[in-house]
Amino acid sequence: MANKPLYIQKAAQLVTLQGSSDAPLRKEEMEQLQIIEDGSVWIEDGLIQSVDTDAEIQKRYASRLNEAEIVNARGKLVTPGLVDPHTHIVFAGSRESEFELRLKGATYMEIMNAGGGIHSTTSATRNASHEQLYEESWKRLDQFLRHGVTTVEAKSGYGLSMEHEIKQLEVAQQLNRDHTIDIVSTFMGAHAVPADYKERPDDFVDEVIQKMLPEVARRELAEFNDVFCERGVFTPDQSRRILEAGKKWGLLPKIHADEIEPYRGAELAAEVGAVSADHLLRASDVGIQAMADQGVVAVLLPGTAFFLMAEMANGRKMVDTGVPVALSTDCNPGSSPTVSLPFIMNLGCLKMGMTPAEVLTATTINAAHAIRRGHEIGSLEKGKKADLVIFDVPNYMGLQYSYGSNHTQTVIKNGRVVYRRDEV
Amino acid sequence: MANKPLYIQKAAQLVTLQGSSDAPLRKEEMEQLQIIEDGSVWIEDGLIQSVDTDAEIQKRYASRLNEAEIVNARGKLVTPGLVDPHTHIVFAGSRESEFELRLKGATYMEIMNAGGGIHSTTSATRNASHEQLYEESWKRLDQFLRHGVTTVEAKSGYGLSMEHEIKQLEVAQQLNRDHTIDIVSTFMGAHAVPADYKERPDDFVDEVIQKMLPEVARRELAEFNDVFCERGVFTPDQSRRILEAGKKWGLLPKIHADEIEPYRGAELAAEVGAVSADHLLRASDVGIQAMADQGVVAVLLPGTAFFLMAEMANGRKMVDTGVPVALSTDCNPGSSPTVSLPFIMNLGCLKMGMTPAEVLTATTINAAHAIRRGHEIGSLEKGKKADLVIFDVPNYMGLQYSYGSNHTQTVIKNGRVVYRRDEV
Ligand SMILES: [Zn+2]
Ligand SMILES: [Zn+2]
Repeated sequence: MANKPLYIQKAAQLVTLQGSSDAPLRKEEMEQLQIIEDGSVWIEDGLIQSVDTDAEIQKRYASRLNEAEIVNARGKLVTPGLVDPHTHIVFAGSRESEFELRLKGATYMEIMNAGGGIHSTTSATRNASHEQLYEESWKRLDQFLRHGVTTVEAKSGYGLSMEHEIKQLEVAQQLNRDHTIDIVSTFMGAHAVPADYKERPDDFVDEVIQKMLPEVARRELAEFNDVFCERGVFTPDQSRRILEAGKKWGLLPKIHADEIEPYRGAELAAEVGAVSADHLLRASDVGIQAMADQGVVAVLLPGTAFFLMAEMANGRKMVDTGVPVALSTDCNPGSSPTVSLPFIMNLGCLKMGMTPAEVLTATTINAAHAIRRGHEIGSLEKGKKADLVIFDVPNYMGLQYSYGSNHTQTVIKNGRVVYRRDEV
Repeated sequence: MANKPLYIQKAAQLVTLQGSSDAPLRKEEMEQLQIIEDGSVWIEDGLIQSVDTDAEIQKRYASRLNEAEIVNARGKLVTPGLVDPHTHIVFAGSRESEFELRLKGATYMEIMNAGGGIHSTTSATRNASHEQLYEESWKRLDQFLRHGVTTVEAKSGYGLSMEHEIKQLEVAQQLNRDHTIDIVSTFMGAHAVPADYKERPDDFVDEVIQKMLPEVARRELAEFNDVFCERGVFTPDQSRRILEAGKKWGLLPKIHADEIEPYRGAELAAEVGAVSADHLLRASDVGIQAMADQGVVAVLLPGTAFFLMAEMANGRKMVDTGVPVALSTDCNPGSSPTVSLPFIMNLGCLKMGMTPAEVLTATTINAAHAIRRGHEIGSLEKGKKADLVIFDVPNYMGLQYSYGSNHTQTVIKNGRVVYRRDEV
């Protein structure tokens, strides 16, 4: 296909989020969607050239209108491509059987301590070849695309050994090259203490720091370094060591913090200068304030709480405190087997008290900042990647009002239409 | 298109629910999905001719295999077409603005008493022409179809006057004729007390009984007669009068019961021999037992509770007590603007403690019984309508495990493929 310009025409609402490339949005800023009515976008060479009212675009490109491929957005909502800043999509196997156990009352930690949970995914992932992992993860990426997602972060952490962590990261790297969706990689060797290190977790921490991190950095397989800081997994001290070591190798810190009990995870995130702290169901007020002061993005995962039948993180309070909030699926086989970022937005509204505007900010520009892509994606502005979604609703409120459905109609990635839902 | 046989081939799991046509399933029966692995279905003249393992079907139709249109279901789940037994889809307008009010803390009853809520939909519906109502409702039916739903019940109740109740029912009747989805009509003149009867609700009850019911019956516009029995709407005594009057005209009773406070609605349902009692968030133990004794189907609407941020009905307890339970979207513009019956199943599991097998029974055969269609639809058996869904999951558990997404891939109605989701 030749590089025709793409002209997205006359959206009922074009949510641009202009002016948000330098830093994530906070407090009232999170409601300023910068909407253009009857808005159009002119795209060339995979980049956004102009975002304006259709009348202005028609004037500006009058001499070239008949060159362009036109995508009619009349009556529809157009937003930046959704960004999922926290997933574990590179894995093998399925854990449906645990789901029935949980419905009958077993907790996530009980299942894990009985050798299920993450350990079963670790076995399956270690046993899977590069090709198998690639195929299984590819399918998940296809499903993300159908839900309007054009960029995902993906963590390792089901290998838990040099060989298999590298394998996971290599699969992510190849998927990033081959699949329509862009993938941003995070090394998470410290996702769990592997079974054979159970009695000597510090040895595993040393392994991560001395062997894995240098190799991941040398091969340029990740941009971020993440750790599961939780009682029974990694302590705040171990987590700090791992995150500080990663910084020396140029890997930016992220942290799974305060999911099950308050454990000073949010505080630690602020102290080490983490780009994001994620989960935060039990984060302390002091920790939340520290994150606000340091500008650490809170990546909230309400789907995980929904699926584990747990309490939600207090998204409302974090926004009000001035923490920049992002939302994510946490896509993984145990605690959140979903690809539906649109449904995660529904939960943000109905279960965390965020507004329809805030949850959209949280899944576009703030999610982009949570993976250091605020300058490239997450808003519709000249020079940014032409990643957009057309939703079959008349305004941004409709995404939340008509709850429980995926309203994605057309997805544009790098200036090309890559998905279009057929009509009945 | 000629009347070729349709051959649904080799489903990983074919959920048949055989043997359930005479009465809704209860207790342990609700988990007996009667699954055939590598299952196939042979369809002719819009009806199911044979349901068996693929090996058996191949033998039975050996001489005719090359006549048939084949639909490959390898690796997929096939179930009866989903049935939604409680909707208010024939309406005009949208109530997105109320949603924001509710997120800021207003209750449904506060909004309604301030002239919003149902009254705003009543105005919009009264002002809409037959054609407008038809168009708007048609779109919702298309969306239902995409979510695997092949039959819906639809209530009047936004007209609240002879003229406009009849208009709503006529629209439903025409949609039933024209649209792929089958519609079963319920008269619900007693959905709310209209503003001009506020001071004399009994006069409105008389109007419903003496004028509307006879006219609806004479024109054969509905099979069921429903009433909103709730403090501030219709009392149990008024509700009983309305339901008994409907029975004289051959309209079977249904009831909106115990949604906001315990009001003896479940008890009343059992007393008048209602086909179903719906909502039941606050139903008493005595009422639930009475429903079990009388075989009244409980139609539970967890989406409404989710969207109104309220407590859920105790589905687990009702199943255990022996009430036949069905699930529904309650699709309506105020308290449940969704078409996603698959998501309602997710809520049935994660919020009401039902199992993946129970929620599937609750949205197929039990839902069919809730609208007196147990002999025609809701299970895959010889002689029934060939309404089926192919879901892109390997087993019935997958519908709940991979939560928050619509896994509908292909919908077959009356033996024809009427919807197929394209691949990326
Ligand atoms: Zn995670
Ligand atoms: Zn209703």
